[in-house]
Amino acid sequence: MSSNLREIAKKFEDKLSKIKVVAFDVDGILTDGKVWYSGDEMGWNRVTNTSDGYGLKMLKEFGFKVGVITGGDSLSVIKRFKENLKLDFVYAGNEDKRESYKKLLDEGYKPEEILYMGDEFFDLPLLMASGFSVTVPSASLEIQERVDYITSISGTGSAREVIDILRYSRNLYPKIKDMNGEFIKFN
Amino acid sequence: MSSNLREIAKKFEDKLSKIKVVAFDVDGILTDGKVWYSGDEMGWNRVTNTSDGYGLKMLKEFGFKVGVITGGDSLSVIKRFKENLKLDFVYAGNEDKRESYKKLLDEGYKPEEILYMGDEFFDLPLLMASGFSVTVPSASLEIQERVDYITSISGTGSAREVIDILRYSRNLYPKIKDMNGEFIKFN
Amino acid sequence: MSSNLREIAKKFEDKLSKIKVVAFDVDGILTDGKVWYSGDEMGWNRVTNTSDGYGLKMLKEFGFKVGVITGGDSLSVIKRFKENLKLDFVYAGNEDKRESYKKLLDEGYKPEEILYMGDEFFDLPLLMASGFSVTVPSASLEIQERVDYITSISGTGSAREVIDILRYSRNLYPKIKDMNGEFIKFN
Amino acid sequence: MSSNLREIAKKFEDKLSKIKVVAFDVDGILTDGKVWYSGDEMGWNRVTNTSDGYGLKMLKEFGFKVGVITGGDSLSVIKRFKENLKLDFVYAGNEDKRESYKKLLDEGYKPEEILYMGDEFFDLPLLMASGFSVTVPSASLEIQERVDYITSISGTGSAREVIDILRYSRNLYPKIKDMNGEFIKFN
Repeated sequence: MSSNLREIAKKFEDKLSKIKVVAFDVDGILTDGKVWYSGDEMGWNRVTNTSDGYGLKMLKEFGFKVGVITGGDSLSVIKRFKENLKLDFVYAGNEDKRESYKKLLDEGYKPEEILYMGDEFFDLPLLMASGFSVTVPSASLEIQERVDYITSISGTGSAREVIDILRYSRNLYPKIKDMNGEFIKFN
Repeated sequence: MSSNLREIAKKFEDKLSKIKVVAFDVDGILTDGKVWYSGDEMGWNRVTNTSDGYGLKMLKEFGFKVGVITGGDSLSVIKRFKENLKLDFVYAGNEDKRESYKKLLDEGYKPEEILYMGDEFFDLPLLMASGFSVTVPSASLEIQERVDYITSISGTGSAREVIDILRYSRNLYPKIKDMNGEFIKFN
Repeated sequence: MSSNLREIAKKFEDKLSKIKVVAFDVDGILTDGKVWYSGDEMGWNRVTNTSDGYGLKMLKEFGFKVGVITGGDSLSVIKRFKENLKLDFVYAGNEDKRESYKKLLDEGYKPEEILYMGDEFFDLPLLMASGFSVTVPSASLEIQERVDYITSISGTGSAREVIDILRYSRNLYPKIKDMNGEFIKFN
Repeated sequence: MSSNLREIAKKFEDKLSKIKVVAFDVDGILTDGKVWYSGDEMGWNRVTNTSDGYGLKMLKEFGFKVGVITGGDSLSVIKRFKENLKLDFVYAGNEDKRESYKKLLDEGYKPEEILYMGDEFFDLPLLMASGFSVTVPSASLEIQERVDYITSISGTGSAREVIDILRYSRNLYPKIKDMNGEFIKFN
């Protein structure tokens, strides 16, 4: 991961200082964009990434409201984000993502308090409204041209890049004890 | 995705202006070329890509006739392209792809109205006949030397690259409403 | 695929002119080196590549004796190379690959008539004996230093690179008819 | 694999000369970091790599104590590292990895005799204590800044890189017989 993530964090300090909610598209963002049919019980399956997963856990511990907004509603999404990672919200199965986004606004969050990351045309309304918007290099040009930041890689690992940028801009580090029981100092 | 896709679209404007049908080989084009045995019920399984999938959906909405021509006929192909993406045609299970291609001609389409993308020797007759022919960098030299365009990447995502080039050459954009219900302007 | 494959073919013309048998290691050569447990029935599963698969088919059509020599004997190997691709030999389940190799010699083939591709220490006796030896960039240095040729990529697709080099050195092309029923000329 | 692995081995000769135990994190180190739900029986599945696997086998043959320390305890981990590769220790299912590490110390091993490779914050106490610490380029900056060595690639294959560096620093080579039954000389 490039050492200039801290510089990027500084560049976007103002926008990132307001973020309270972090929301992700699933396919192509928290997955590598690939799907395969895994039998009638599992349906369309996809891989997710443990590095992104730990990043999501950290965000929750830091007090952010964290979740996914996805048009699909396959078991693989529910298993990972609801049961395994226990995210604060898992909005799945509604192809018009604006309705899911409005639920966040109805809870009192302002658009400038939302960081949204997505890679497809149906993510654009959310990307254009949010306080900090992120996509990946594999997204279509129309999407790349309308976001604040494009990650260095596409798919799995790209969410962790954004999570680390947000952490660096806010000086947020997990509490980790060394072998002697002392907290490791990160800054 | 490189910002010069619009330049590539301009370069091939004449050929692309005639396209009415968009047809794809499956393995190595709409998949990453990988297959694995998934038990007797599923047979040979493969991954496809959601970004390519949304690209295919857009082409259908724009009025193109969209489909796949593949020698295999495993359940994974049928599930994805017939049941899930509901493409206009799924010609599967005939190793001589020329017969499938002739069905398109029999319906009245001219070769110059067909965009075909494939990566193997059995795709060559279709590539050489079609109005716009595309392959991937992992194809054998004989195939690379007989097509109009070689995508920047192989496998999943390469179809979306071609779909975006076709979109840019024809000024085609999906209808997407922003959070205020207004259509987003793309050009 | 780099356009200098024809130059590489020319460089190794002498050695390649003698080849009658083409034998491959499986893991890391005809797969991407990855394995996963797929339940008690399937055992350790792995992906193979359709581009390599078509390459193997072409070699058979050109009259080469084509097969794999692998220490493992999982169902995934048998399904792909014996049942699906119907290779001439599938030597599986013997960790000492020299014994499998000797079967080829016992049939009357000379070492200089054998092209062998492998990436691990247990492949070295076969690589060092064979008329043309190939490995991948991910192999340990000791192996890279004892072969004739190192492919440009590791894993799936690397076998096709070697197959194409062999084809170019011998002017071998598949018989493919165009839409008018005429054979396509490749040289 | 870069030819400068022998130079890297020389650079770290002192530290590596003391190593008796080699321990690995699993996700992102011995896997590519990806997980997928594989049904209630298998649970969360992941791929491992045969090149890493053979590296682990060599280390065992050379007399190192070799194992994994992972927070998860899914069947896929047990199957691969306990049943298939028969590693000396498989510490799974304890999220505080320090307790597993202390078991090694309780057996009499000193921290400077342990090589540890991991990529996440919960690996940091072990990385900072160990005689030789390794991570991957996809790890967060805080981790990259606290280790002895960062491999050239992330995920599968990165463990083999470290294993080869350790081998070169200690002049360790597997015993491999050529076709004539003579041991191949590696140095």
